Amino acid sequence: MPTFARNQWYVAAYGREIGRELFARTILGEPIVFYRTETGEPVALADRCVHRRFPLSESNLDGDRIVCGYHGFTYDTTGTCVAVPGQNRVPRTARVPSYPVIEQDSFVWVWIGDPARADTARIPRAPWLADSGYATVSGMEPLAARYELLVDNLMDLSHETYLHGGYIGTPEVASTPITTEVDEEREIIYVSRHMDDAECPAFYSKSTGLEGRITRWQDIEYHPPCLYLLHSRIAPVGVLPREDGSDPDAFHVEVVYAITPETEHSTHDFWAVARDFALKDEGVSEFLRENNRTVVLQDVTALDILEKVVAAEADGYQELSINIDTGGLAARRFLKRMIEREQEVRA
Amino acid sequence: MPTFARNQWYVAAYGREIGRELFARTILGEPIVFYRTETGEPVALADRCVHRRFPLSESNLDGDRIVCGYHGFTYDTTGTCVAVPGQNRVPRTARVPSYPVIEQDSFVWVWIGDPARADTARIPRAPWLADSGYATVSGMEPLAARYELLVDNLMDLSHETYLHGGYIGTPEVASTPITTEVDEEREIIYVSRHMDDAECPAFYSKSTGLEGRITRWQDIEYHPPCLYLLHSRIAPVGVLPREDGSDPDAFHVEVVYAITPETEHSTHDFWAVARDFALKDEGVSEFLRENNRTVVLQDVTALDILEKVVAAEADGYQELSINIDTGGLAARRFLKRMIEREQEVRA
Amino acid sequence: MPTFARNQWYVAAYGREIGRELFARTILGEPIVFYRTETGEPVALADRCVHRRFPLSESNLDGDRIVCGYHGFTYDTTGTCVAVPGQNRVPRTARVPSYPVIEQDSFVWVWIGDPARADTARIPRAPWLADSGYATVSGMEPLAARYELLVDNLMDLSHETYLHGGYIGTPEVASTPITTEVDEEREIIYVSRHMDDAECPAFYSKSTGLEGRITRWQDIEYHPPCLYLLHSRIAPVGVLPREDGSDPDAFHVEVVYAITPETEHSTHDFWAVARDFALKDEGVSEFLRENNRTVVLQDVTALDILEKVVAAEADGYQELSINIDTGGLAARRFLKRMIEREQEVRA
Repeated sequence: MPTFARNQWYVAAYGREIGRELFARTILGEPIVFYRTETGEPVALADRCVHRRFPLSESNLDGDRIVCGYHGFTYDTTGTCVAVPGQNRVPRTARVPSYPVIEQDSFVWVWIGDPARADTARIPRAPWLADSGYATVSGMEPLAARYELLVDNLMDLSHETYLHGGYIGTPEVASTPITTEVDEEREIIYVSRHMDDAECPAFYSKSTGLEGRITRWQDIEYHPPCLYLLHSRIAPVGVLPREDGSDPDAFHVEVVYAITPETEHSTHDFWAVARDFALKDEGVSEFLRENNRTVVLQDVTALDILEKVVAAEADGYQELSINIDTGGLAARRFLKRMIEREQEVRA
Repeated sequence: MPTFARNQWYVAAYGREIGRELFARTILGEPIVFYRTETGEPVALADRCVHRRFPLSESNLDGDRIVCGYHGFTYDTTGTCVAVPGQNRVPRTARVPSYPVIEQDSFVWVWIGDPARADTARIPRAPWLADSGYATVSGMEPLAARYELLVDNLMDLSHETYLHGGYIGTPEVASTPITTEVDEEREIIYVSRHMDDAECPAFYSKSTGLEGRITRWQDIEYHPPCLYLLHSRIAPVGVLPREDGSDPDAFHVEVVYAITPETEHSTHDFWAVARDFALKDEGVSEFLRENNRTVVLQDVTALDILEKVVAAEADGYQELSINIDTGGLAARRFLKRMIEREQEVRA
Repeated sequence: MPTFARNQWYVAAYGREIGRELFARTILGEPIVFYRTETGEPVALADRCVHRRFPLSESNLDGDRIVCGYHGFTYDTTGTCVAVPGQNRVPRTARVPSYPVIEQDSFVWVWIGDPARADTARIPRAPWLADSGYATVSGMEPLAARYELLVDNLMDLSHETYLHGGYIGTPEVASTPITTEVDEEREIIYVSRHMDDAECPAFYSKSTGLEGRITRWQDIEYHPPCLYLLHSRIAPVGVLPREDGSDPDAFHVEVVYAITPETEHSTHDFWAVARDFALKDEGVSEFLRENNRTVVLQDVTALDILEKVVAAEADGYQELSINIDTGGLAARRFLKRMIEREQEVRA
């Protein structure tokens, strides 16, 4: 049984990472070379020459074409080989796979599975990341752990209290019960924790200027497999959205994670923090960037340890789950179902 | 076939290593967290939370309880979970294994197998290490080799001549024949080498002040699997114990090794040197500590190399054994028998 | 199916590498210890003591004998054990394998397979390396890649244009078609590329002093599995060998590679460059040594990458081959046939 669904969109990179330099990244175990054409279109090709498998990412761009760094086999943006050394005839089968890519919401999304099924309308949205009404900081940390451990981690924020104390964790996160909703049809999982009267962690007090206790909402919206949204709302105790749905007296932070398996045991951990306040304040941007990166690295450290534990474990180890795990267990079920669906199609 | 016997006592640590900080050590492949209660009792628990397997050693002590560093699952000294996040009810099955531990002769001994069979009376003794009539230096070196290679090494001291020349090895060690006795019932192996007229190696001449040639006795007493005792007696040539058994004119050094498998391919190599002379002489202590550690590290270097050789070897490689290996072969037989006994009990 | 033929001669070392110090090198997966006797004869023995497998290379020479560094088992130049500790009788079976070795053309050749089949007449020759009519520079670079990748690399020099541009590569190498001849009986492969009017790369312009365009011949002669010869001829455009076969107006460089598998996934990459001009010019020697080493390291970097690609690849990956690969494909066929022949003899 494979451990990831291939017929899904995954974030391959931030748009800013892809340019006129050849850029190598492995997605779902597939080595891929990315670049932009002279007109700026992103291209994704399998990262190995058809001839002797040399990585194309170790090669050179000639206009919009890649010239293999080993023997000079030359490819256009569709992966078709257009020149070979020592002869004029190019074999008709000389072609490397190309992958559908879409640039949206600051991300470059890639489709690894059957290209005929790559429906771009199905890419979930994170519009804040490319919205001038928000200020965004973002990054990516490599994780030496299977992506399922990151999904577990993000679906159960009670860990903030223990792993991220002093940053985003306070006692109320762990002690406040959650509500979980599962949309079986659209395959989205919602986990909410509304704290009415909570301590304000440094991450929010320093960025918003709020003093004293707060009402703090965490509304998770997970679109398996790749996109995780945390709608975070912070306001003074008692301040609620208005009846018309507007919410001018609260601070809103959209925390976005893209969870992309690199291999079965490693993950690209993309993170972004978009806020609707202090838009021009570079100090706040810098504070949130540094603090969120620290928080992500706390997770990375813990999950890298956990990967070693899980990898060394005999099969059939039985975990114990409680209420806080409802969302995480639903996520595991969805991910399993997506993989099984693909297996059935194949069979 | 497993490679170690589980229903046996093993040295987990020196007593001085275990305190109010959580202390992780793997014994027979089992990750274990150790600590002392507020009243000083040593505790050993399985080093992974029942919830998501996070290592408890990466957590915090709250009084005598461990609070998991990931989601706050809280355990008492018996391994029973007494608190979980987000709910009041603690699942009845929430408990991590605890291991019997006994502190004796400066060591903390642990029992990994069936707790019902943990008979503390069966722990072999090394009383000198906690006896005010002796001065002791000790340490532990990690060995990247299977424990059987260390057993082989210690059972055949002819290697002192070649591997430890200039420290404890002289030509007489390799050239003097040994006598071996095997107590099948109590499962103890005795190997003796009595040199009547031997060169005095630096290790003993500098610590005792003896000049000239010596009578040197090496009486090994191995209690498989873990405890190895070398009763070392040094005296001027011709000086023997008296008829009444007393031996006031000789120097006695009790060399103790505890051989504890960490994994199938690594070992905790505990070593201690207890002497009945120059008890208050810090210079002698420092000399013996540094010299014995050097000797142990010479073994570690050789055995780490040997592990790679053995690990790369095809199965069925046939070694050649001679007289000096009698004790080592008996040790292998006992170790094999202990494991087989456990397999039979299981079946 | 094994990946290398054992009943073949392989280069183990340069003669200069073997002396009165014990020298360890693994050939075809076999750890071997090399040394010279007091009269200068090279000796090759299996690098593990019959007793407990300690590497003899971690031991000491006593005259022409090796004394094991662990317990003192002592071996003569035939591998026969002549002394053991603690007893006078040496077991009759105590012996380590010895390997036939021949010193020729500056190399020490070794035979790993059945000694009865070690016909020294079959060692291919590279006479320039020990000929006073030539000046030679040479070295060995360890390659973390299977030897087949190095064979591929050397059989298809069109890669010079892309991987070694600025050193030995020019556009003409990749664009000039090759001719390939395969001697099925003697098992030699010839690949020739004669460029009539080519750019002179730095490697040749700086060493010969030639200015302007050149006629450049590359005549490969591969004696599988180990010896690869590149007869390189450089002359001003239009200058050809005379009718009598003499060629006084050209520069000749004999490039020699010995390709020796260390393990299934690593290779000893011996390289030598012999020239028939500027014999006494140390500056030219130094230039060619540094430049050829740089070129070899460019290959090492590329092939180390390629090894990782190939090792991670699922079986059955289909490469695409074109005309330039004719010689390389013939080489693969010969290597496979040599291995199959051995399998048949065994069966």
